[in-house]
Amino acid sequence: MSTFPKNAWYVAATPDEIDEKPLGRTICNEKIVFWRPEAGKVAALEDFCPHRGAALSLGYVCEGNLVCGYHGLQMGCEGKTVAMPGQRVQGFPKIRAYPVVEKYGFIWVWPGEPALADTAKIHHLEWAESPDWAYGGGLYHIHCDYRLMVDNLMDLTHETYVHTTSIGQKEIDETPVSTKADGDHVVTSRFMDNVMPPPFWRANLRGNGLPDDQPVDRWQVCHFHPPSHIMIEVGVALAGRGGYNAEPKDKVYSIVVDFLTPETDTSMWYFWGMARNFNVKDKALTAQIKEGQAKVFAEDTAVLEAQQRNLLQWPQRKLLLLNIDAGGVQSRKVIDRWIAAEQPAKLMA
Amino acid sequence: MSTFPKNAWYVAATPDEIDEKPLGRTICNEKIVFWRPEAGKVAALEDFCPHRGAALSLGYVCEGNLVCGYHGLQMGCEGKTVAMPGQRVQGFPKIRAYPVVEKYGFIWVWPGEPALADTAKIHHLEWAESPDWAYGGGLYHIHCDYRLMVDNLMDLTHETYVHTTSIGQKEIDETPVSTKADGDHVVTSRFMDNVMPPPFWRANLRGNGLPDDQPVDRWQVCHFHPPSHIMIEVGVALAGRGGYNAEPKDKVYSIVVDFLTPETDTSMWYFWGMARNFNVKDKALTAQIKEGQAKVFAEDTAVLEAQQRNLLQWPQRKLLLLNIDAGGVQSRKVIDRWIAAEQPAKLMA
Amino acid sequence: MSTFPKNAWYVAATPDEIDEKPLGRTICNEKIVFWRPEAGKVAALEDFCPHRGAALSLGYVCEGNLVCGYHGLQMGCEGKTVAMPGQRVQGFPKIRAYPVVEKYGFIWVWPGEPALADTAKIHHLEWAESPDWAYGGGLYHIHCDYRLMVDNLMDLTHETYVHTTSIGQKEIDETPVSTKADGDHVVTSRFMDNVMPPPFWRANLRGNGLPDDQPVDRWQVCHFHPPSHIMIEVGVALAGRGGYNAEPKDKVYSIVVDFLTPETDTSMWYFWGMARNFNVKDKALTAQIKEGQAKVFAEDTAVLEAQQRNLLQWPQRKLLLLNIDAGGVQSRKVIDRWIAAEQPAKLMA
Repeated sequence: MSTFPKNAWYVAATPDEIDEKPLGRTICNEKIVFWRPEAGKVAALEDFCPHRGAALSLGYVCEGNLVCGYHGLQMGCEGKTVAMPGQRVQGFPKIRAYPVVEKYGFIWVWPGEPALADTAKIHHLEWAESPDWAYGGGLYHIHCDYRLMVDNLMDLTHETYVHTTSIGQKEIDETPVSTKADGDHVVTSRFMDNVMPPPFWRANLRGNGLPDDQPVDRWQVCHFHPPSHIMIEVGVALAGRGGYNAEPKDKVYSIVVDFLTPETDTSMWYFWGMARNFNVKDKALTAQIKEGQAKVFAEDTAVLEAQQRNLLQWPQRKLLLLNIDAGGVQSRKVIDRWIAAEQPAKLMA
Repeated sequence: MSTFPKNAWYVAATPDEIDEKPLGRTICNEKIVFWRPEAGKVAALEDFCPHRGAALSLGYVCEGNLVCGYHGLQMGCEGKTVAMPGQRVQGFPKIRAYPVVEKYGFIWVWPGEPALADTAKIHHLEWAESPDWAYGGGLYHIHCDYRLMVDNLMDLTHETYVHTTSIGQKEIDETPVSTKADGDHVVTSRFMDNVMPPPFWRANLRGNGLPDDQPVDRWQVCHFHPPSHIMIEVGVALAGRGGYNAEPKDKVYSIVVDFLTPETDTSMWYFWGMARNFNVKDKALTAQIKEGQAKVFAEDTAVLEAQQRNLLQWPQRKLLLLNIDAGGVQSRKVIDRWIAAEQPAKLMA
Repeated sequence: MSTFPKNAWYVAATPDEIDEKPLGRTICNEKIVFWRPEAGKVAALEDFCPHRGAALSLGYVCEGNLVCGYHGLQMGCEGKTVAMPGQRVQGFPKIRAYPVVEKYGFIWVWPGEPALADTAKIHHLEWAESPDWAYGGGLYHIHCDYRLMVDNLMDLTHETYVHTTSIGQKEIDETPVSTKADGDHVVTSRFMDNVMPPPFWRANLRGNGLPDDQPVDRWQVCHFHPPSHIMIEVGVALAGRGGYNAEPKDKVYSIVVDFLTPETDTSMWYFWGMARNFNVKDKALTAQIKEGQAKVFAEDTAVLEAQQRNLLQWPQRKLLLLNIDAGGVQSRKVIDRWIAAEQPAKLMA
């Protein structure tokens, strides 16, 4: 049984990663080379030269083709060999091409059946296009099943314990969450009224010109969209001003952006970031938030990798499903449905 | 077939390793977290949170409980969850607790059947409790079956070749050993009369105010006790003063302390040290002896790890059993008896 | 099916590698220790002490014997234990001895059936013995099947792409190769007339006092001899002076020396070097050529290791065989014949 759907758009890279040289990256167990046939375009092929099996990602781009760095075979975007010095290439076998698109500031790849790829299925990301928002983020490679990260992000109770010095606070624990699923969209919410803001939020309050020493209303609204994209609305408003619905001038509001891309069954690419709709021109603030988030998210890495090792050692062991786990449980149900939908139909008896 | 008995006390750690934070360590293939519920007490549990499989060793201790660093589940010493924020924990499955005790300056764990654990089975270590003795030691992690180290220590012929510049001397080779087994206690002895002391012993003679340029009588008496504890009486006396039985003023006498703890079938924790009953207040001497021993014992590591690789590559190959190997052979027989005693009884035909 | 013949002479080491200490090295999946029983002699044995399996390569040589660094067992050249302190060794099992010889500035080993080893089978290397030649070279350890390197060297088209800044030039691509097999000897040739010399050859022209800014005739004649020795005649002559057959004063001519020795099925020892017959006393030139070649040949390493990873991931995938691959294809046929000849005869139906 697969651990991930393949008929889905995954974030494969950030645009700067393939600006000049090709990029070799494994996504959903597929070894893929990403490259730019021309400025602003992107192509994705199997990272395997049909001639002798060399890694195309070690090659270079020339006049719109990907040139194999071993014997100069030239690949077109569609996986067809278009030229090779001294050779007729018509009969060369095609290699696999992957649907790929650059959108919202990311490179998206579809590792499954190409005929089903439709860029309209990439769900809309308002913050990525609107001038009212600023974004900063990074990439971590983590040795764990990406679903452990789904569990992690769809329940922020762990902030109290994993992120004690930044965003954790005891009131997170003490406030129950509510989870609901609407089709493939899973939402887990927690609202904490009249609490003191932890350090990360105090810094953000200051970043928006608000006092950092007063009680606030704090919220966390985690949205899961398949295959594994999690957007978390987070923020604090000065207490009693309407909380989540307070006026912009009374709050700081951000979206924690998490694109989880399986590399293999037990490793993943973690594209993390934060979008905010206050003080958006302040690049120093963007850099400062990114740096803070990088530290916070690195704390999860050690926990999840140790958890993965434990699960590999005790594969049969049953885990608990508590109310705080409902977000992960519901999200995994969506994932399982997507995986099941990809299986070949079975004959009825 | 197991390579080690599990119904036995093994040294798991030194007390300083778990003074503040929990310690995660694999012993006999069991992933265990060691922690202190209160000063002077120690507890050992499976390193697996029953909630989602996180490593408990990444957590911390709070008010006598081990707090999981992921979601704040609190574990008691017996492996029962005692609390978790916002949860009823009565129905949580217990995790395994291991008998554990602090004694003689070490943390001892019993990785097998808890009902059989009896601290009276830890054999008495006079040097660890008496003010007439001083002790210093360290810990090495070695990639070899712990039984290769049993072989190594129950025959010190190798000192001539492995430890040429410290404790080796040609007379070791030339002097036959005598091995006898008394129940589970195996003893291999070698007595060398009227030899010049090698560098390590010359330093010790000076450390006890004795001349280092005269012939000595030297002895090595290796004691094996199951599961894998080896105490080696070593020393030199000025020649002709009675050797092993000479007056304290005429000799230097130490006990080489070796607790061999299997980590996996092909790796081990090596708790090594030396106890001496001369000049016991001299801490600089203790440090100097420890430093010398650390270098000597590191020399064994390379030899044993290469031997382990060879044995893995040629698993069927027969080895020789010579008279110098008798100590290891007899000790392994005791180990095999202990392992066999743990096997479920077979039905008679 | 084996990937290499064992009844063959392979280069195992350069003489300086075993001048003082023994050398442990795996050749064709055999763990071997090489050592010198006396100056100018070399012996090769299984790297496995018959006593307890210690690695003999960790030992030392004493009075013509290899002394095990664990318990002092002494091995003779033929794999018989000749002495051990306090032991009668007559009954000790022999370990395997490998035919080994020092010739042409290399240590050659025969990992197969000793009775078939005949040093006359080492093919003659004129450049290694004649004072008219100078030689410099090095050793790389590469994680790939040695046959990928055979492919690489028996077709130099890759120079255009892999070695763009040193020996590559577009005319290589544009000039067809000719391949012929004469028994076990495979030759692939390419002659390029009236081309500008690339940087590596410009430096060599200067090294021989010739102008470096004029057109040259360039040649590459690759000779494969089993099991996996490839000598490549390379050179350039001032254009129109006879090319390959030009007078020595009008050309620079070298032999690229490649001894490919399998370590395992997917790793190899690469003994590379260059012999030249011009300006042979100039040691600075020898060093300079070696340094340049080291850089060039390191470029192949990354390509071949990535290719090996790809082939391991897609083992069933068919590769193309183009005309440029003929040299590798023909050479592999010879290798396959040699491997087949070693298989036990099958009964006829």
